[in-house]
Amino acid sequence: MTALTDRALRVIPLGGLGEIGKNMMALEHGDDIIVVDCGVQFPEEDMPGVDLVLPDISYLVERKDKVRAILITHGHEDHTGALPYVLPQLNVPVYAPRLAHGLISVKLREYRLHKSTDLKVAEPNSPVKLGAFEVEFFRVCHSIPDAMGLAIRTPVGVVIHTGDFKIDHTPVDGKTTDLATLARYGSEGVSLLLSDSTYAEVEGYTPSERVVGRSLDRAIGEAPGRVLVASFASLISRIQQVIDAAARHGRNVAFAGRSMQDNVTMAIEMGYIKAPADVIVNVQRALELPRNQAVIMTTGSQGEPTSALVRIANKAHRQIEILPDDTVIISATPIPGNEKVVSRTINNLMRQGARVLYDRVATVHVHGHGSREELKLMLDLTRPKFFVPVHGEYRGLVAHAALARDTGVEASNTFVLEDGDVLEVTGTDAQVVDHVEAGHIYVDGLSTMDIESVVLRDRRLLSRDGIVVIILSFDKATGEPLGEPAVVSSGFVENDEAGELFERVSAAIFDSLNHGRNQPTDWSYINTKVKEIAGDFLYKETGRRPMIVPVTLEV
Amino acid sequence: MTALTDRALRVIPLGGLGEIGKNMMALEHGDDIIVVDCGVQFPEEDMPGVDLVLPDISYLVERKDKVRAILITHGHEDHTGALPYVLPQLNVPVYAPRLAHGLISVKLREYRLHKSTDLKVAEPNSPVKLGAFEVEFFRVCHSIPDAMGLAIRTPVGVVIHTGDFKIDHTPVDGKTTDLATLARYGSEGVSLLLSDSTYAEVEGYTPSERVVGRSLDRAIGEAPGRVLVASFASLISRIQQVIDAAARHGRNVAFAGRSMQDNVTMAIEMGYIKAPADVIVNVQRALELPRNQAVIMTTGSQGEPTSALVRIANKAHRQIEILPDDTVIISATPIPGNEKVVSRTINNLMRQGARVLYDRVATVHVHGHGSREELKLMLDLTRPKFFVPVHGEYRGLVAHAALARDTGVEASNTFVLEDGDVLEVTGTDAQVVDHVEAGHIYVDGLSTMDIESVVLRDRRLLSRDGIVVIILSFDKATGEPLGEPAVVSSGFVENDEAGELFERVSAAIFDSLNHGRNQPTDWSYINTKVKEIAGDFLYKETGRRPMIVPVTLEV
Repeated sequence: MTALTDRALRVIPLGGLGEIGKNMMALEHGDDIIVVDCGVQFPEEDMPGVDLVLPDISYLVERKDKVRAILITHGHEDHTGALPYVLPQLNVPVYAPRLAHGLISVKLREYRLHKSTDLKVAEPNSPVKLGAFEVEFFRVCHSIPDAMGLAIRTPVGVVIHTGDFKIDHTPVDGKTTDLATLARYGSEGVSLLLSDSTYAEVEGYTPSERVVGRSLDRAIGEAPGRVLVASFASLISRIQQVIDAAARHGRNVAFAGRSMQDNVTMAIEMGYIKAPADVIVNVQRALELPRNQAVIMTTGSQGEPTSALVRIANKAHRQIEILPDDTVIISATPIPGNEKVVSRTINNLMRQGARVLYDRVATVHVHGHGSREELKLMLDLTRPKFFVPVHGEYRGLVAHAALARDTGVEASNTFVLEDGDVLEVTGTDAQVVDHVEAGHIYVDGLSTMDIESVVLRDRRLLSRDGIVVIILSFDKATGEPLGEPAVVSSGFVENDEAGELFERVSAAIFDSLNHGRNQPTDWSYINTKVKEIAGDFLYKETGRRPMIVPVTLEV
Repeated sequence: MTALTDRALRVIPLGGLGEIGKNMMALEHGDDIIVVDCGVQFPEEDMPGVDLVLPDISYLVERKDKVRAILITHGHEDHTGALPYVLPQLNVPVYAPRLAHGLISVKLREYRLHKSTDLKVAEPNSPVKLGAFEVEFFRVCHSIPDAMGLAIRTPVGVVIHTGDFKIDHTPVDGKTTDLATLARYGSEGVSLLLSDSTYAEVEGYTPSERVVGRSLDRAIGEAPGRVLVASFASLISRIQQVIDAAARHGRNVAFAGRSMQDNVTMAIEMGYIKAPADVIVNVQRALELPRNQAVIMTTGSQGEPTSALVRIANKAHRQIEILPDDTVIISATPIPGNEKVVSRTINNLMRQGARVLYDRVATVHVHGHGSREELKLMLDLTRPKFFVPVHGEYRGLVAHAALARDTGVEASNTFVLEDGDVLEVTGTDAQVVDHVEAGHIYVDGLSTMDIESVVLRDRRLLSRDGIVVIILSFDKATGEPLGEPAVVSSGFVENDEAGELFERVSAAIFDSLNHGRNQPTDWSYINTKVKEIAGDFLYKETGRRPMIVPVTLEV
């Protein structure tokens, strides 16, 4: 594959295509690169012990002199969370909408990067020149205030990147998706549209936040006792709705959990949350109030094990316990993969007698991404020549590409890309010309690992049938084995079975070593042999296949 | 709590209440016990290395002379799969509907239990006397043929156990849920209804199997190339629909995967599947046919790693690979917990160019459990005095109990039970009087473990940050340490980091041991000390907390 021309625009997704999370996209033209978003992904079950997943930015690091800026579309972790890891390698200006700017500032301070980072507020509809690019941020609706899309003038035409968006005509903060700006660029002519595909399989329109407001108001109004509301700490509009409903029904609101408290404090200071005087109290005070005068908001809507809600559900919270006339509202939908733990939390709350309202039985949440009708409206307003679906699993990208074709984009002009694909776009043509490195980087503790990590493979093996360590001591002088090997294990069999079983495997190994004693002391031969003998013996006795680690000591 | 009377009926769920799977329920009166179903559960992520989960039957084993029979409602594993483990401890007659009888026979033969087991065919509407009980099986619709509910005459009145059911007026095999029998018992008076709660949160009616038939027919008719259909091996009606659609569109059908092949063979022999002559071919033949003349049915609709579909999706199947005009139909819905792996399978099939139809984008599956309107119909037909929701997570049981109250069952007569609760029922009263042992028994390899297992706890720990084994050798005569300890690890850090790190931790341990050398050789003191020193050192260096296992050798 060869480049169309050296004056083409290169579009390089580095994260978030074909998978949910760690969103990152590079646009390159000549000597200039701009990067859209810089997110993390939360680890999945097949990544045991991993704390976070980062995008692989080696493509950018190799070209760091060309990178003009990182542009942040909104303040969610899957768009901002990799900044503390990326900025030390790539110290470039960061542009972020006002609220995201506030959230990022807090994070950079934690990592002591606030002084070395050039973090700027991106105001909507105030174009910024960045090398060959001119970027105009414009408002979109999403599940956090101050979400923006990007209209980017490039030498090959206008590129629209929607960010995460939905089209809510009645959002809580009154700030609707800026259809006028989109229409303006549409009339002018859009070369390439990059549009959010998270819900590209869902028919119809995503309901307005207003629907949730009504449900919350009714639920809080009708509750006989205390109300607990669990949601995302970053879902500022939901917090506002809960405060409004509580105030209307003569209740006070308290916030449990540090991230929820920090975000509320910040959002009030910055003017994103408006609370009538005296409505907000601390948790202790809320617990002392008559039960029909208290609302407590918590984190834990995703069943996070250390969150306030999960500790309450497990009767492990220091202050809050469920009382029989409590109402718990789970104002969120489980993110794929979290269904089981969320369900377990609901079950445990119900076991303690709480009435629980959740997505399946009440309209207590709407999500922040557009459904198919909204995606079609975006396509129709911008009428792009080329189309690349972004943000979503592969199946969502495929569904979105089909939708684009339905609205009139030529089939040969829609591109289902994956991370690392390089799409070159000129005024007239586009094609995938290359694939660069773009994988997962795993953060575990203080260091990172890549996808080929032996550590992760071993952890998966260890969790299956445990480990058996066999320690053989040899006389340094003679090379003779010093008695039967010692055997220790973990995660293999219960202690009461282990004693006799290990004596027998130890004897079997010792016998076979003595048997071949006239051979030279070949450690790798001995190790292989020990693995084989112990593996067969233990499988026959237990039906399990632990990892077997022989250790040979010369003493 | 005391028993209401020694002539009360005791209702004791032993599995399947408050959790999906391993369904089992005991009914006890005087000297007689009958058991409804005997299922397994498939292990969840927090049960690493576990093969199967069984119900704890110690209550029954302690009373084995009283157990008259095990009654099987239908042939799914979550209702039959524990028989091979239970029958050796509880050798009682087993009654099963004809198809379940066939499936169980195969399984018992594998376990060499077929000769020692008294396995009988349960015919619908032919009452069987079992001690104090008289049991009439009656037909219900479910996602496997020959599913039955039970009407049980007891000394305290009639008990109806629905089994798993839905009310499909147009099922594929024409055998509808036997509303007439239900209505007859309803007119006579039902004391207690035990009813399926799996979908008690879902509004409306579960669609008929017929809807799926039409979708499959259209999808197979319109497909340009080969069609692969993935479903459950036990979903006989779906297999019939695929055969019918294939025949109608001039295609042959092949079955990939041993369980699918075995079930089809058995179902054809027993008359549950009817296939026109020559429609069924083997996989090799299907691959040689022109691509628009082949349909291949496979297992793997739940993303099972060793299934045919998943191997095809991962390009690891011996015979079958995806070609660009292939259509893949996932005729199933992910069971809770399997969402991620199913999604990954769909993504990987699409990456190879297949068109994939699945539940979110086409009506290619309906499930086998009644929704709220059907549950209300069941309640209204039987008009029970007492109600116990069965089969479902706790949230489903709670939703179903509320539904029962809505249809007129008195609030104080609905009981949300969990496994092990003992409900006593007389002609006039019912109350929970006791709780007996009823937990999970884990099968791993050749032996079983209980929920308190240290082995499982250790596997979970091992998978988090791995293990570090520290081997200290001491002189048998002097008690002096013989040099710095040896350190081996797995799942902790990459090999290239390990060498230097382990030298340093080893030196640190050796120093501290020498430091306290004048103390007596107290192994437990040394072990605790080593754990502490190594734990702190490694956490400080890596931010990880591996399991630390000290081993002390005297040589």
